[in-house]
Amino acid sequence: MCDKYKALTGANRMRKKVLIVYAHQEPRSFNGCLKKVAVETLSKQGCTVTVSDLYAMDFEPRATRNDITGALSNPEVFSYGVEAYEACKKQSLTSDIVEEQKKVQEADLVIFQFPLYWSSVPAILKGWMDRVLCQGFAFDLPGFYDSGFLKGKLALLSITTGSMAEMYTKTGVSGDFKYFLWPLQVAIAPHPTLPPQLPQVQNEHGTLHFCGFKVLAPQISFAPETASEEERKQMVASWAQRLETIWKEVPIPCTRSWYFGQ
Amino acid sequence: MCDKYKALTGANRMRKKVLIVYAHQEPRSFNGCLKKVAVETLSKQGCTVTVSDLYAMDFEPRATRNDITGALSNPEVFSYGVEAYEACKKQSLTSDIVEEQKKVQEADLVIFQFPLYWSSVPAILKGWMDRVLCQGFAFDLPGFYDSGFLKGKLALLSITTGSMAEMYTKTGVSGDFKYFLWPLQVAIAPHPTLPPQLPQVQNEHGTLHFCGFKVLAPQISFAPETASEEERKQMVASWAQRLETIWKEVPIPCTRSWYFGQ
Repeated sequence: MCDKYKALTGANRMRKKVLIVYAHQEPRSFNGCLKKVAVETLSKQGCTVTVSDLYAMDFEPRATRNDITGALSNPEVFSYGVEAYEACKKQSLTSDIVEEQKKVQEADLVIFQFPLYWSSVPAILKGWMDRVLCQGFAFDLPGFYDSGFLKGKLALLSITTGSMAEMYTKTGVSGDFKYFLWPLQVAIAPHPTLPPQLPQVQNEHGTLHFCGFKVLAPQISFAPETASEEERKQMVASWAQRLETIWKEVPIPCTRSWYFGQ
Repeated sequence: MCDKYKALTGANRMRKKVLIVYAHQEPRSFNGCLKKVAVETLSKQGCTVTVSDLYAMDFEPRATRNDITGALSNPEVFSYGVEAYEACKKQSLTSDIVEEQKKVQEADLVIFQFPLYWSSVPAILKGWMDRVLCQGFAFDLPGFYDSGFLKGKLALLSITTGSMAEMYTKTGVSGDFKYFLWPLQVAIAPHPTLPPQLPQVQNEHGTLHFCGFKVLAPQISFAPETASEEERKQMVASWAQRLETIWKEVPIPCTRSWYFGQ
């Protein structure tokens, strides 16, 4: 690699942009601590870090007619998926959605920081996914998985759990943790009217992947509420340490075997 | 069976109570139609049917400090799971949660009627699950799975999809449909501080099952938006027909093999 290219790469790395979509009510929580450490660590690297603090923003999770500022394409029978798609094309989505979409658009990496609520994202974050990642912005048909509109971006789920690690094995009480990640990292679109001729994407998946994101391995902090102070410090430190070399990480394979074994 | 007992059973059947938790914005939608048919069919049987029309109620999906009407048990660091649990015990949860809990408490069967958004429930319904099914009401530790507080009740997910049935096979583009059902029917608690000695429940699971519900097979209406009028009518008719004998159905086994095969 020539020096000039090296220098450019270094400069590019310094300008990386990160969006943290953060869903916890309490700044002094363990989730708040992980978010703070991520902001500090990534900023020190020279990254531009933006935080969408969903509870602080009182972010609207409900997908309603209010999301479309102009006239509806079919005022007789309201279909959210259809109307959001049309509004996206006509640039008539409501401003809070557009602002989040701009943040996503600018980001090289989107980190989702949240506590697991009923084995999934809290409703406020589900609402962010439902409303922000709409057809026309995050994907189209065709225009998904490796052709998703957010291709070239990285995504990472940083999750805290209530239960201990031992419970999340294939034979444990809660099942393998990867089972829960399938609909989040994997998933399909809200209302895709998919074409009869589907592309050959049988080994690839994702809410995130569907939109084109490459997904980094999840960061799972098990049961911080029952952990000792020392264990909590260790979990925070390992997150900070991981972020030091985050740009060198290789995305996880979005294959069924990663999630469910062979 | 003696006649007296038969008569009692018949009378009991007539008095069954059903709660439909319904998450669609549009009464004239296919989801609205399935909901309407369920109300009609079950009412004709003599059931008492209550509908929680979440969008019409402008149901709050965000789990916040507002959910606790009294003083917090730890005002320094707000933990939603802990505070909701304490508030539930002290009967100081906010009124919209209490009203939903009463409806659940009275129901013999809870039907969730919703379109799949990103392979899961819409945020407004996720918020219903996050807020209504709190520790102290739906479960405790111990007091989950077969000892969950909602034991003796049935639950049923009635889902519409954007994609066609062929996509939801193990080798199809979206993976087996059952994979998506795992966290919904299956799942773990929001913030369980689980005891070190876990009960032997290794073959049993569920957001629903965790709370003690027995889960009936999901009703999945594939891609109504792209279906013909005739196909849509058929899907509605088959739902109505199923509801005629719903009380005779045997719950699905909540085992890993039902979801993922052997």
